[in-house]
Amino acid sequence: MNVFATDPRPHVLVLGAGFAGLEFCRAMRGCHDVRITLVDRQNHHLFQPLLYQVASAGLAAPEIAHPVRSIFSDDDNITVLMDEVRSIDLEQKRVKLRDHELDYDYLVIGLGVKTGYFGNDQWAKHTIGLKSLDDATEMRRRVLLAFERAEMCDDPEEKARLMTIAIVGGGPTGVELAGAFAELARHVLRSDFRAIDTNNARIILIEALPRLVPMYDEDLSDYTKKKLESMGVTVIVDSPVQDVGEGTIELPERTVVAETIVWAAGVQAIPLARTLGVETDKAGRLIVEKDLSLPEHPEVFAVGDIAHCIDQAGVRVPGLSPAAMQMGRHAAEVIQDDLKRKRKRRDGSLEYDVRPQFRYFDKGSMATIGRSAAVASSMGMKFRGFPAWLLWLFVHLLFLVGFRNKLAVLLQWFYAYVRYRRGARIITGQGPKES
Amino acid sequence: MNVFATDPRPHVLVLGAGFAGLEFCRAMRGCHDVRITLVDRQNHHLFQPLLYQVASAGLAAPEIAHPVRSIFSDDDNITVLMDEVRSIDLEQKRVKLRDHELDYDYLVIGLGVKTGYFGNDQWAKHTIGLKSLDDATEMRRRVLLAFERAEMCDDPEEKARLMTIAIVGGGPTGVELAGAFAELARHVLRSDFRAIDTNNARIILIEALPRLVPMYDEDLSDYTKKKLESMGVTVIVDSPVQDVGEGTIELPERTVVAETIVWAAGVQAIPLARTLGVETDKAGRLIVEKDLSLPEHPEVFAVGDIAHCIDQAGVRVPGLSPAAMQMGRHAAEVIQDDLKRKRKRRDGSLEYDVRPQFRYFDKGSMATIGRSAAVASSMGMKFRGFPAWLLWLFVHLLFLVGFRNKLAVLLQWFYAYVRYRRGARIITGQGPKES
Repeated sequence: MNVFATDPRPHVLVLGAGFAGLEFCRAMRGCHDVRITLVDRQNHHLFQPLLYQVASAGLAAPEIAHPVRSIFSDDDNITVLMDEVRSIDLEQKRVKLRDHELDYDYLVIGLGVKTGYFGNDQWAKHTIGLKSLDDATEMRRRVLLAFERAEMCDDPEEKARLMTIAIVGGGPTGVELAGAFAELARHVLRSDFRAIDTNNARIILIEALPRLVPMYDEDLSDYTKKKLESMGVTVIVDSPVQDVGEGTIELPERTVVAETIVWAAGVQAIPLARTLGVETDKAGRLIVEKDLSLPEHPEVFAVGDIAHCIDQAGVRVPGLSPAAMQMGRHAAEVIQDDLKRKRKRRDGSLEYDVRPQFRYFDKGSMATIGRSAAVASSMGMKFRGFPAWLLWLFVHLLFLVGFRNKLAVLLQWFYAYVRYRRGARIITGQGPKES
Repeated sequence: MNVFATDPRPHVLVLGAGFAGLEFCRAMRGCHDVRITLVDRQNHHLFQPLLYQVASAGLAAPEIAHPVRSIFSDDDNITVLMDEVRSIDLEQKRVKLRDHELDYDYLVIGLGVKTGYFGNDQWAKHTIGLKSLDDATEMRRRVLLAFERAEMCDDPEEKARLMTIAIVGGGPTGVELAGAFAELARHVLRSDFRAIDTNNARIILIEALPRLVPMYDEDLSDYTKKKLESMGVTVIVDSPVQDVGEGTIELPERTVVAETIVWAAGVQAIPLARTLGVETDKAGRLIVEKDLSLPEHPEVFAVGDIAHCIDQAGVRVPGLSPAAMQMGRHAAEVIQDDLKRKRKRRDGSLEYDVRPQFRYFDKGSMATIGRSAAVASSMGMKFRGFPAWLLWLFVHLLFLVGFRNKLAVLLQWFYAYVRYRRGARIITGQGPKES
C-alpha cells in the first residue's frame, strides 16, 4: 500500500509506536509539509509503566493499551501501518517490512528494547519477561494457575514450590511486581482457597547489587526493602544470578526453587540494531550524536530506549518513558528546524546550519511498592510512603493515553483500594505447552 | 486433594460454573448439612450474553468474567476446583477429572453446550464460534487484523474480501454480532484508516429459516431485519448453508466469499453427554425427568443447556440463561427437600416421597441490534427500539456478576454511547497459524 505514492512531500518514516515514536508523531501533528508513516507490529500503544498491573491481575489488558490509529485519526499527514520491521538499509534509505518496502527521507527509530539475559539467552525459556501485553497475560495465567495447582496438590514440598514466585531484578519493575504479587497472595486471594493458605506463598526478590532500586538514594532503597519485607517479600541482595534452570535459580550462596521465575533484570536492544553498520553499545543500543541522529546519517534518528545518548550536559539519558518522550519531541524539533532551514536556504537567508542538541530534563522517577506506598525522587526531592504513592497515581493517570483508559483505571484502583480486590483475576489463553 | 476426606456429610458434586451450576451453588449456600464441590475447567464464571461485546471490541475480557472462587469465598461448605471432567461413572457414582477422581452422593451436571455444525464438524476449521473468552478475543483479533490487511492491500477484490464478515445464524447471537460489527466498521473505525473506507465493509448475516430471530413474533423479526439493513448489514434469509470452505459459504442460490466466517447457527451438547448410557436428544442433550434428575438416577441432575427438559406444563425449556438459573435453583430445592425427608424418615414422620417438578417461568428474551435499538418479548408484551434497548441494558447490568464488573461495563457503555468509541480495540495473542 502506498496511499501517498504521488505525494511530493518529504517522507518521515517512524519505526515503533512506543513513548518515543508516539511523542515524535504528536509533535509533528501540525507539520503538513511532510508526510509521516508510523509503523508498529502491534495495533496499540502500550503504557509500559502499568504492565506489571496486568501481570498481577489488577488491570485488564485493554485498559493500558490504546489503538494507535485512533490517536492520529484526525491527522491527515500521519499514516499508521501495522507491520514488522525486517531490515533497514541506511545507504539506500529504505526499510524492509514484513509486507512492504518503504523509502524515507527521514527515519526515526524508536523500536525499544527487549528482555536481556546478559548473554545467557538460554535462561529465557525458564523465565518469563515483561515487555508486551501477551507477556503480562501469560504471567497472570501462570501465577494464578500455580495457585490452582497448589490447591489440588497433596505433597507439601511441591505445594510450597508451586506457591513460590521468584523475581530476578530489584529495579522498579521487580519491586513493583514483588509488591503486587505479595498483595495478591496475602490479601486478594486470601479467603478463596480451602486447602492452601495463600499467606504461605513466597515472593522472592533477587538483586545482584547490594541494594534495591540502586538509582535512588540509599535511604529510599532501605525503605523499599523494609516495606517489601513487611509485606512478606523475601529480599535477597548482593546475589548475582549464576545460572537458571527449569524452576531453579543458582545464586552464589544458595539455590532458589520456584514454580514461576520472572526476569526483570535487564534489557537489550533488538537484534536489528546491530545490523545497521553503525556503532552500538554493549547492550546493542545505537550510539547517537547530540542531536539524536546517527553518526554520518543526519537523516536518521534513534529515540527512546534503543538509543545510547549522552546529552548536551554530558548526562547518560536513562531508559525511562519521560526520557523517551523528550527524545521524540527533540527529533521532531530537529526535523522541523531542518525543513525551515531548507526553505530559508532557498531564499538565501540561511546563516547557520547547526542543529539543536538534546538536553535531558530529569523529572525524576518513581516506583510503587504496594497499596499506598511508593518511592519517588524528583529534582532533588525525595518522597516515600503515601505521598509518593499519591504522586505515582497522579502521574500515571496523567500520562495514560485516552480519556476512557484514565477513567477505567481510576475505577479499578479505587475498587482495589477500597475493597482489596483485583478485577482481572481470570485465566485466559492456552499458553505455551504445559510443562 | 480432598480437604473433606473425613467429612461425613453427603457430597454434592457440581460440574460446570455456568449460569445453572453457579445458581445451584448459590441456592445451596446456607445448606451446611452437605459439602459441595464445584468443578470448572476455567477459573471464572463467564457472562455469556455479553460475549459478543468482547468479540466486537466493546468490552475487555475481565469485565464479563468473575473468578468463581471469589463468589464463594465466604461459603465454607463450597469448594471450588479448577479441573476438567474426563468421564462420569453413574453406577460407581464417581467422576474422573484430569487430575482427580471424586465420588459423589449427588451429582449436578451443568456442562453446557458447544458450537454445533449439524453433523458437519469439518466446517469448524473454516469458521469461528463464540463460546469462550478465548473465542471472543480470537474473533476480535481476526476482525481487526483483517481491516489492517485490507489497508495494506493493493488488489481491490482482495481488499473487499478482507473487509467482509459473514455470520451464519440469525438468532440473537448472530443479530447482536452483525449489529456490533456494522457499528464497528461504520462508526468506530471510520476515520482510522487512510487507504480503505470502512463504510465499504460488508457484514452479511445468513439465516436458514425465512426470518431472523424466529423465536419472536413476526413483526419483531421484520423490525430486526429492517434495522440491521439500515445499519448496512446484508441479510440473507431462507438460505440453509450447503457447505463451508476456506473463506467461502455455499448457499442454495449463491456463494458468499468472506475473510471472516462466524458460526452462530447451532449448538450441541459436549460429547461426554452421550457416554453416560442414558437417553439423549439428537443434539446430544440429556433427557431429564420433571424433577430434572436423570431417569433411574434420582441422585443425578442435569441443569442448563445440557438438559433436554419438558417442564411440568409440557413446555420445552429453552437454552437461555434465565432458564439455566431456574433449573439450578430447582435442583437445589429438590436436594434440600430430599435431605429434609431423610431426616423426617428417621423420626418416622415422613408421609410422601414425591419430588417437586420443574416449572419454567418464561420471563421472555431479548436481543440488542445496535446502539439504542433492541427487540424484547416478555410475558405477552413486545418491545422494540429504544425502550427495548434500555430494558436490555438494565437486565444485563443487573445479572452481571460482581459490583466492579457492573461499574466497569456501565462506564464502557456510557463511553461507547456518548463518543461512539470502543475501549477494547486491541489485537493480542498470536492466534492459530496465519493463513
